[in-house]
Order: sequence, then C-alpha cells, then structure tokens
Amino acid sequence: MVAEISRPRAAAEADAACETSHNVDSGALAGVKARLLSIPSVQAVAEVFKLLGDPTRVRLVDALSHGERCVCDLASIVGLSESAVSHQLRLLRAARLVRVRRTGRMAYYSLDDHHVIGLLHDTRKHVEEGAQS
Amino acid sequence: MVAEISRPRAAAEADAACETSHNVDSGALAGVKARLLSIPSVQAVAEVFKLLGDPTRVRLVDALSHGERCVCDLASIVGLSESAVSHQLRLLRAARLVRVRRTGRMAYYSLDDHHVIGLLHDTRKHVEEGAQS
Repeated sequence: MVAEISRPRAAAEADAACETSHNVDSGALAGVKARLLSIPSVQAVAEVFKLLGDPTRVRLVDALSHGERCVCDLASIVGLSESAVSHQLRLLRAARLVRVRRTGRMAYYSLDDHHVIGLLHDTRKHVEEGAQS
Repeated sequence: MVAEISRPRAAAEADAACETSHNVDSGALAGVKARLLSIPSVQAVAEVFKLLGDPTRVRLVDALSHGERCVCDLASIVGLSESAVSHQLRLLRAARLVRVRRTGRMAYYSLDDHHVIGLLHDTRKHVEEGAQS
C-alpha cells in the first residue's frame, strides 16, 4: 500500500477540492468521456501495472531489457533460486510481458514487445528525475 | 493477485527451467549486472507500478492524459464522488504522477510529465495488441 503524504489536514483538503462551485462544461466533458479507455481496457491496464508492482518482477524485466536470457542466467543475475525465478516468469508470461524461445533443450526468455521496454524506461526516467529534483 | 495460468504441471515446469546444465558466461552476466537498476530504483519503480495497479487511478490518469481538469470535472468524468477522487489524486500527487495548478480558488490537476503519458500509452498498446492477437 502506498503511504499517504503526511501534512496538515487543512493543506491536504485545500489541494483536494475546487474550493468553489462552477459550471461544468458538460459538452467538453462528454467529449473527454467518449475518448476514455473502456472499462475492460482499464481493468487490463491496471492488471499489467499491478503485476509490475513487485520488485522481483521489475528486476527480471530490467534484466531482460538487456537481451534474452535463460532461467539459470536470470537466477544468477537477480540472486534468486531458479524455482523462484520460474514462478515469476510464468506470471509475466501469462500477461504477455515476456515470451519464451526454445532451442534444443534450452529455453530463452525475452520481453514480449517494445512497449514493455518503453514502460520500464518511462518509469525509470520518472523516478530518476524525481530523485534529482 | 494475478492468477497463474492453468495448465498441466509438466508443461509449466518445461517452460520454467533450462532443462539442462550449461556453462554460465560469468563475464557476460557481470556486464548485465553492472547495468541493472539499483535496489532503491527498483523499489521506487515497483511503487509507481503498484500505485497504478488500480482501476480508479488508471481512469484518472487516462482522463488527465486528455488535458488538465479540476476535481469536480474529474469526479464527473469517472463517476465518483469528489471526496473519492481527491483521495486518489493525493496518492498520485505524492508519487509525482500528477501535479496541481491553482488559479484563484480553483485547483487544476494535470499529469506531472510526459513519462506518465508514455507509461499509459505503452500499457494501453500492449493490452490492445494482446486483445487483437
């Protein structure tokens, strides 16, 4: 759970509301509503974010952003057992965040598409820029 | 919690492991390890994903991706009370995903930076492409 920021209640409430009644431009709002994600898409997007909201899975996606790897290599990179890594890879694969390629008896994992790399990149930049400010 | 995919145990295990011993190229792995996110960065990235792993917050970010809005407008757009929307906006603001701008007695929210738009865009595309395949 993300902790709420700690500050005086009055300040928090001043942030929260418009503090005044005003006429809502219902035409403009209808335009925005028409362009919103559908409820099933919202649910699917939230599921992807929820899956990535785990440090081990972030580390695996980060490792795979440098190229495909087998389970043993990934286990070595993140410092966990192959069993633990395999479990997380199955979850990531079920959400199509990673894919598997087989060569003989070896199985290599990679990120499923460039959007997954973009996701990690944008979040990393967001975090890094916050740390610098 | 994300459900695991349902399939025979043998198939799941075949996915999971390399199925063979092989020599790990420790030099190449050391190179990858040196380029990984630091542990604090991994934690911060996972916290951002976790925060976005909620349908209401995804809807708010989606609504704000079309331009800045006051709390009343956002409440109307997502069909929730201003109080509920304010609570979620405070969490998003604490993580610097949204920012607030004041004009007189009005407070307008917008996405904090272009990385947040990129995040939503990439996840939306990932989900949509999965739905089409």
